[in-house]
Amino acid sequence: MTTDAKILSALRASPDGVSGAQLAEQLAISRTAIWARIEELRKVGYDIEAGPHFGYRLVSSPDALHADDLLARLGPVKVIGRDIQVFQETTSTNDVIEKLARDGVREGAVVFAESQTKGRGRLGRVWMSPARKGLWFSILLRPEMRPQAATQLTIASATALRRAIISVTGVVPEIKWPNDLLIGGKKVAGILTEMSAEVDRVRHIILGIGVDVNLAAAEFPVELRKIATSLRIEAGEEISRAELATAILHELDVDYARIGGGKFSQLADEWEAGCATIGQNVSVQSGVQRIRGRAEALDDDGALLVRTEHGHLERVIGGDVTLEKN
Amino acid sequence: MTTDAKILSALRASPDGVSGAQLAEQLAISRTAIWARIEELRKVGYDIEAGPHFGYRLVSSPDALHADDLLARLGPVKVIGRDIQVFQETTSTNDVIEKLARDGVREGAVVFAESQTKGRGRLGRVWMSPARKGLWFSILLRPEMRPQAATQLTIASATALRRAIISVTGVVPEIKWPNDLLIGGKKVAGILTEMSAEVDRVRHIILGIGVDVNLAAAEFPVELRKIATSLRIEAGEEISRAELATAILHELDVDYARIGGGKFSQLADEWEAGCATIGQNVSVQSGVQRIRGRAEALDDDGALLVRTEHGHLERVIGGDVTLEKN
Repeated sequence: MTTDAKILSALRASPDGVSGAQLAEQLAISRTAIWARIEELRKVGYDIEAGPHFGYRLVSSPDALHADDLLARLGPVKVIGRDIQVFQETTSTNDVIEKLARDGVREGAVVFAESQTKGRGRLGRVWMSPARKGLWFSILLRPEMRPQAATQLTIASATALRRAIISVTGVVPEIKWPNDLLIGGKKVAGILTEMSAEVDRVRHIILGIGVDVNLAAAEFPVELRKIATSLRIEAGEEISRAELATAILHELDVDYARIGGGKFSQLADEWEAGCATIGQNVSVQSGVQRIRGRAEALDDDGALLVRTEHGHLERVIGGDVTLEKN
Repeated sequence: MTTDAKILSALRASPDGVSGAQLAEQLAISRTAIWARIEELRKVGYDIEAGPHFGYRLVSSPDALHADDLLARLGPVKVIGRDIQVFQETTSTNDVIEKLARDGVREGAVVFAESQTKGRGRLGRVWMSPARKGLWFSILLRPEMRPQAATQLTIASATALRRAIISVTGVVPEIKWPNDLLIGGKKVAGILTEMSAEVDRVRHIILGIGVDVNLAAAEFPVELRKIATSLRIEAGEEISRAELATAILHELDVDYARIGGGKFSQLADEWEAGCATIGQNVSVQSGVQRIRGRAEALDDDGALLVRTEHGHLERVIGGDVTLEKN
């Protein structure tokens, strides 16, 4: 952690305030150095009170994302969030982290962007990413797995994202297989899983996550208003993006460790419980193929098992799922 | 095709010679322009005779690879070899073509290097690529397929490579699943299949192919002499690299069209017939797992089906295969 991250971490641990002397001792730097860093944090929007009785006290944090703040909020992690970068604007955070991946950066690195000029969703679709209204970020992973098993990570992202949203906002989203989170049938978040692989082993996987956090209804293009929503619209209040980002990374760190520990089936059970797709009649368009039937369950690799009207069990690993009227 | 490619193509089509006037008419350029290009071709090693009776006649071609010459030899293709580049030296042709892929270059592009400084094989292994002694090249493909099916392309490369080697050298190699060609149990060629994918669809696939063509026994490092060989050693004569390269691209173009046409099973049959692995007792090390049994067949995705001693049929998509003594 950087000095700023340590200071923010200490301030958050003591809501009633912490003295400059204590901070200086904890961080093993001078009180003057502490004061100088506090001044810098104030400049980027942290409201830090100072007084003779309580020392320094964090009154409020800016809405903007800061890597140091995210690291401080996150605390110790196993893998995900060990390294965090925040960009004001990028083409796509997946592109940035793809470059880091090729430069050999260790897994767990996370790149946030306050806005993306070329945010993308699955199948090459555009993902609208207006400045400071959502969370647009990507995570680099280097799991030892076969390419087939990569769907496990999409599944894990969906469960982690759902838990984090429930915990921070109280709103309960539904999962739509394989990569969307919906509230009241409207899309609020999506996951794009990209990989670089040999035939039999993954080199790296990039999880791209987009969450519509604080967009107002009027901020959605007209054509999206019936099919997309934001957490702010659904929760009826502004949501702290930093708090939500931290919660998502923490939950995903937990889920990733579960996959590494061979406990994907736990995630599959949780996913099925939170899923709008399982138990429904669905129509899946996958390339030129269309499969109709009842979505029954996930298999060990995270593929969707669909029972067709002829009684066959079809294994679907991707495509566009539409819920059919029963 | 470039002008040089057209000239070489016309010269090859008329081994007895073709007049400057005919060439000028065919290519719709002046006889002076033809003469100038012939001079340039001579400078890079093409021995082109000129005489009042026969016009121009191609006596011999240099051993060095030239993109124009390869295009001319190849003639019209469906996909593979539409665009060809030759580098004197690169780190790895897979790296070069990966960049082209990201720049949106169309599928079928091929990059050759006379030598590679960081040639690589499967599982991150080093691939020795000495200057002008072999064929080291990579092919960009953008098939519409699931990541699982990528093994089909490794299989197709192996069958195409085998046919081309038999046709050009007369030597008959055996295929070792999934990606090696052996002669007398020694490795003579290898295929590295790399892909960039979403969970449910391939974005692009890069086939990296390495063939030990004209290395003498003494040119192999001591530690490789018992396990590696070259076509020259096995055929007892120098092999035309350009002729072999052209044959491989042509055969692969045919096989790729078969896969696109849903006829992978034909390739699987051909592959099994040329394979040293099918019908043998094998031991497969795949990650931490070791599977022992009898290799029975390929499935529709190109995976190896191994019958274990307990009678289970295991599906193997990668790993190191060792033939066990029966």
